[in-house]
Amino acid sequence: MSVKEKHITLAHGGGGIRTWELLNEVILPALGAGNLALEDSAPLGNLSGKQALTTDSFVVTPRIFPGGDLGKLAIFGTANDLAVMGARPCFITISLILEEGFSISELAQLLESAGKANQEVGSLISAGDTKVVPRGGVDGLFINTSGLGEVVIHPQPGVGKVSPGDEIIVSGDIGRHEAAVMLARSAFGISGELESDLAYVGEGVFSLSRADIHLHFCRDLTRGGLAMALYEAATASEVGILIEEQALPIHPRVEGLCSLLGSEPISMACEGTFIAAVAEGDGEKALSTLRGAGFPQAQLIGKATEPYPGAKLGQVRMVTRLGTERVIPPPLGETNPRIC
Amino acid sequence: MSVKEKHITLAHGGGGIRTWELLNEVILPALGAGNLALEDSAPLGNLSGKQALTTDSFVVTPRIFPGGDLGKLAIFGTANDLAVMGARPCFITISLILEEGFSISELAQLLESAGKANQEVGSLISAGDTKVVPRGGVDGLFINTSGLGEVVIHPQPGVGKVSPGDEIIVSGDIGRHEAAVMLARSAFGISGELESDLAYVGEGVFSLSRADIHLHFCRDLTRGGLAMALYEAATASEVGILIEEQALPIHPRVEGLCSLLGSEPISMACEGTFIAAVAEGDGEKALSTLRGAGFPQAQLIGKATEPYPGAKLGQVRMVTRLGTERVIPPPLGETNPRIC
Repeated sequence: MSVKEKHITLAHGGGGIRTWELLNEVILPALGAGNLALEDSAPLGNLSGKQALTTDSFVVTPRIFPGGDLGKLAIFGTANDLAVMGARPCFITISLILEEGFSISELAQLLESAGKANQEVGSLISAGDTKVVPRGGVDGLFINTSGLGEVVIHPQPGVGKVSPGDEIIVSGDIGRHEAAVMLARSAFGISGELESDLAYVGEGVFSLSRADIHLHFCRDLTRGGLAMALYEAATASEVGILIEEQALPIHPRVEGLCSLLGSEPISMACEGTFIAAVAEGDGEKALSTLRGAGFPQAQLIGKATEPYPGAKLGQVRMVTRLGTERVIPPPLGETNPRIC
Repeated sequence: MSVKEKHITLAHGGGGIRTWELLNEVILPALGAGNLALEDSAPLGNLSGKQALTTDSFVVTPRIFPGGDLGKLAIFGTANDLAVMGARPCFITISLILEEGFSISELAQLLESAGKANQEVGSLISAGDTKVVPRGGVDGLFINTSGLGEVVIHPQPGVGKVSPGDEIIVSGDIGRHEAAVMLARSAFGISGELESDLAYVGEGVFSLSRADIHLHFCRDLTRGGLAMALYEAATASEVGILIEEQALPIHPRVEGLCSLLGSEPISMACEGTFIAAVAEGDGEKALSTLRGAGFPQAQLIGKATEPYPGAKLGQVRMVTRLGTERVIPPPLGETNPRIC
């Protein structure tokens, strides 16, 4: 590709030589996936055992934010969706939708970040796609990743497998990704650095099963935050869940931003923090295991209970710092767009 | 979801209750995937044998065109990428990027079409994602699909497996999808109906292996058309390829549009037409097999040869209708954007 080309053109998405050049000279080297065969689909070799499949599109703005960027998010986001289901990420696909005129050096930077993240996860980038849309048809760059993983935790954790008595652990402080992205947009005129918690959570999840902890349910706290994850678990498992506000780890700047905006950390997205429901009696061991596995802020935050009689939106409750108990309803979703 | 909601709002992408409602009341019923567990990744059960993985994002405009629509294209496009690699599509993921304000009834219509296409393919929709982007951030609706398939043709066909002497077959007339989309945009003021060739090609591909034909290479002719597919095969297999112009099936309206615009059918995209390179001597049998398997326009169009001495861009050649021979260079990609 000519060194003079600094921006994406429509021809880069035309499927001809320009697409080939972009792929071979920019995309594959940046991803560190130089050995990708350019076939219509990628042969994976023989797989055995139980597999898990996931997909996610990433549209975050800004594309580069404190603690991460779109490329890293696209890999970790999908890898985390596999890990919390007890699956080791094996194969990842990457599909790019680029706006005409997009900077090729920014593309390379974001894909280098994705490649590095992929190396940390230990997965193989095995298929991809590149589309270019005329100016105005898409805002810059969107990335879709899909992931195929091998289930290594048996029995596999699931949203419907929480039992009364299960202990609930959160792996770190909540709401920081969404808060960091909001601050990076500077929409509120608040300065002050706050880093996203963006990270791969696999080592944390797998450390629990290696320690023979009975992991019933696990979820990374993305859109909708802790409140939505608990609501879904309570609904699918037909249990109540009671958490304690004072046990929740929250960064002071997230707390500050929330009190300013009237929003709540429990409904805000993380990208490297998960909750786990473990069998009654396994809580303390799970906590020390997680703290030793790179999650020093992990906390026991509550328990699953028998279902509360009454309304189905009232199954998740929280003992507040004042000692009162209140219902945590599922968020409607009137949150910030484009946080992931 | 309130019946009053006719348009996508940002809350539908917030990951809360509004997302749940959209998923359960619109997306899953339309796809006919009502039993999809709402987990972060989908358990697939045990897989065995060799698998293939692919991904594609679809950004076609208009979203509904003669012969198809975005939903059908998103399924068949990905299913075809598996089929031409000898893989039966087993699992498909669907990820939607929606613009705020998008019509929910159009969404349902497109997903019903996708669901119907998926039923024809026989695959299982196993995971999905929904993002909503504020107005202007994306043009309407983009769909990414990824597919996991089981390789059923052994040895697996591949772009580097063409040998001199191999016979080249095209399954139908070329360039019709791109021409139909161009006409549907009415950018040229040309009326006259022309339908896209959009279709699932799996039954054609698998009919060849069932007839014990030695299938060395197979590819569906999407962006870059026949010219790009032949170029890639010649390059990867280190062979020359000689085709005959008069053998190429071309719809008269595609021919007419091309002569008007100075473009060539051999560089234009199909979405339901593929080429196959089969072992020398298998050509006639492959042709009759394909014609009996729903591809009545299939044609033998040429042969692989020893490499032509000289420039690497000159390995694909065509005997023209005038009897002269000319090089078919790979298209640069200066084609129409958003045809798929």
